[in-house]
Amino acid sequence: MLGNFTYENPTRLHFGENSLEFLKEELAHYGQTVMLSYGGGSIKRTGLYDQIVAILKEAGKTIVEDPGVMPNPTVEKLYEGCKLARENNVDLILAVGGGSVCDYAKGVAASAWLDGDPWQTYYVEGNDPATDLRILPVGCVLTMVGTGSEMNGGSVISNHTQNLKLGKVFDSRLMPKFTILNPKLTFTVPQYQMVAGIFDIMSHLLEQYCSNEDDNTSDYLNEGLMRSLIHSSRIAVKNPQDYEARSNIMWTATWALNTLLKQGKRQDWMVHMIGHAIGVVTNATHGMTLASVSIPYYKYIMHSGLHQFVRFAKNVWNVRSEGKTDEEIALEGLASMEAWMREIGVTMKASELGVTPDNIETIADATVLGGGFMQLTREDVVEILKRAL
Amino acid sequence: MLGNFTYENPTRLHFGENSLEFLKEELAHYGQTVMLSYGGGSIKRTGLYDQIVAILKEAGKTIVEDPGVMPNPTVEKLYEGCKLARENNVDLILAVGGGSVCDYAKGVAASAWLDGDPWQTYYVEGNDPATDLRILPVGCVLTMVGTGSEMNGGSVISNHTQNLKLGKVFDSRLMPKFTILNPKLTFTVPQYQMVAGIFDIMSHLLEQYCSNEDDNTSDYLNEGLMRSLIHSSRIAVKNPQDYEARSNIMWTATWALNTLLKQGKRQDWMVHMIGHAIGVVTNATHGMTLASVSIPYYKYIMHSGLHQFVRFAKNVWNVRSEGKTDEEIALEGLASMEAWMREIGVTMKASELGVTPDNIETIADATVLGGGFMQLTREDVVEILKRAL
Repeated sequence: MLGNFTYENPTRLHFGENSLEFLKEELAHYGQTVMLSYGGGSIKRTGLYDQIVAILKEAGKTIVEDPGVMPNPTVEKLYEGCKLARENNVDLILAVGGGSVCDYAKGVAASAWLDGDPWQTYYVEGNDPATDLRILPVGCVLTMVGTGSEMNGGSVISNHTQNLKLGKVFDSRLMPKFTILNPKLTFTVPQYQMVAGIFDIMSHLLEQYCSNEDDNTSDYLNEGLMRSLIHSSRIAVKNPQDYEARSNIMWTATWALNTLLKQGKRQDWMVHMIGHAIGVVTNATHGMTLASVSIPYYKYIMHSGLHQFVRFAKNVWNVRSEGKTDEEIALEGLASMEAWMREIGVTMKASELGVTPDNIETIADATVLGGGFMQLTREDVVEILKRAL
Repeated sequence: MLGNFTYENPTRLHFGENSLEFLKEELAHYGQTVMLSYGGGSIKRTGLYDQIVAILKEAGKTIVEDPGVMPNPTVEKLYEGCKLARENNVDLILAVGGGSVCDYAKGVAASAWLDGDPWQTYYVEGNDPATDLRILPVGCVLTMVGTGSEMNGGSVISNHTQNLKLGKVFDSRLMPKFTILNPKLTFTVPQYQMVAGIFDIMSHLLEQYCSNEDDNTSDYLNEGLMRSLIHSSRIAVKNPQDYEARSNIMWTATWALNTLLKQGKRQDWMVHMIGHAIGVVTNATHGMTLASVSIPYYKYIMHSGLHQFVRFAKNVWNVRSEGKTDEEIALEGLASMEAWMREIGVTMKASELGVTPDNIETIADATVLGGGFMQLTREDVVEILKRAL
């Protein structure tokens, strides 16, 4: 590790099938009014909503209802949440749901008391909240696994008018104060969403792994998480009720993107940038947008970081290297990854998500350019999208 | 992961060769009086002492000098530190040194305002500090790598009158508020101490790895850290000035024992218990006491957890399994570990540390019994010590 950095992650995690028991204890740290943010009706169907409302009432809290947070939270919903939080002078935002609800809650937490437009300030211009800005505390009860939003400062918001889906990484002030991680709460997620979440985790790992060239302990930790994820995902797709597999996947998701793995590393994130652009145009499920472009993307950039793809093949996929060229080893690693992706059932073609030869140019326009081993141009993005169809 | 647990680690880490620059910023969070705790003269010889005093003065702090923290901090020194902290009403304890100084600082932080005997209260009886007890904040500047004390609540104190070396794991209130990790500060540590620190890290990893039987993401992270450590240690023993290797070792040490890897796991810790007992009788260097008993210990317990030693051989040491029995694979893994230990130059015989047939019984008496795969009796400890001579 050659870089200088500061690592800090104050989020308290309560993990396990009994973890909801800690919610009441956590609530005691905050004031009277709790904004309860959640998505559609799924937490009502599963009974989780009633459980949480009961705990909030038992703790004597006033509940401000904030339903309807959508899978790709919009800037309009963000504005609405800010108004609600400010008008009710809320003391805590309790996000119940998946990464989208957590992302949204952090956006509101940073924006409720902001003078000015949060979309422009944070997501477009990338500014940090002023040190004297009132920031609302966020707590999470996670029901869907993948984004890692439960233990980081990340927040992704979509602006359909501007055709942009932009992420802001806030500092530790915006990290959730606490998160309840109960693997059993993820059992009711549909298989499609579970698998999309699993690939989202894999993509987070790869975005941080396939980048710079120094020798770094982070890459060894990353390989460990990839191996655990591959192992547990194979069990979970066959039996989604396997608690051990689902709990390992949940824990892996959190550590895949809670800032540990990026320390001392350059990163890539172009799969996410292209995936976000597909998402804003098609509204497809996030993890599947990533899956649909990953193999074409990594084959496209492979020669710019061949050493790392060789390492990936050997250390993650146990590819034997004897008598093979580096290119052969690297391709065998990517072939193993592709076979695993087909096995767990992710979307392998962007055309299945609504990407067509006609909207490729629009998606390329919406893609924020950058890269790790290779800095992508707009033309590169178009070429990768063509290969992903 | 089948267990329920709460994970929380609020320590802020400033890492890299420029990390001392953050000390002044950190000092601004605390009051006027800083107790500067350190060991012998090494930080004066290297100039670090002068640098830190200059930063403290620039920040306008009053310095309470607290030198003479010994490698295995004693209960007498702990009492002395408490008196000093209380009499001077210190606002922050700044520990500059290795794990012993950090361990000691946490002991003082928990004890300065305690009514009663800290040795008895915390280390013998294992009580936690009362919620209303005034606990002093601790900051660390690390100069020696291995113990992980810079990011956990652990504190080991020796009582020579009672022939006991006991550890207390405090909760997150006692974790350092901040730690400065500058790999360059470790360059001046003698090779013997560097190597002992490397083995201490390996032992922390093994104590958490060689234990229970469930499938757990922690074990995959653990394997990643072991692989990184083995790789970087081979570079560091040949060239202790290799910044990249030393920085990876420093980062590995922190994550090997900051509570991440133990989540959802049973643990072992018998190598440490025997090592502590050797330490209290011989005053030998901590990491070398662990090294001297590790191979005999793991061979002794191997059949109680054969599956994990097979996994260790394959995933950490790349042992090929074709055509071999599980026992052969496991023994080949331990043989690889032994070869690595000889390569980096740790002590392989307890007799070289002052253990003799005559004091084995005394050491066994001083060993706190327990275990992971196998619960050890006093007779087991005697047998392992005989094999370690």
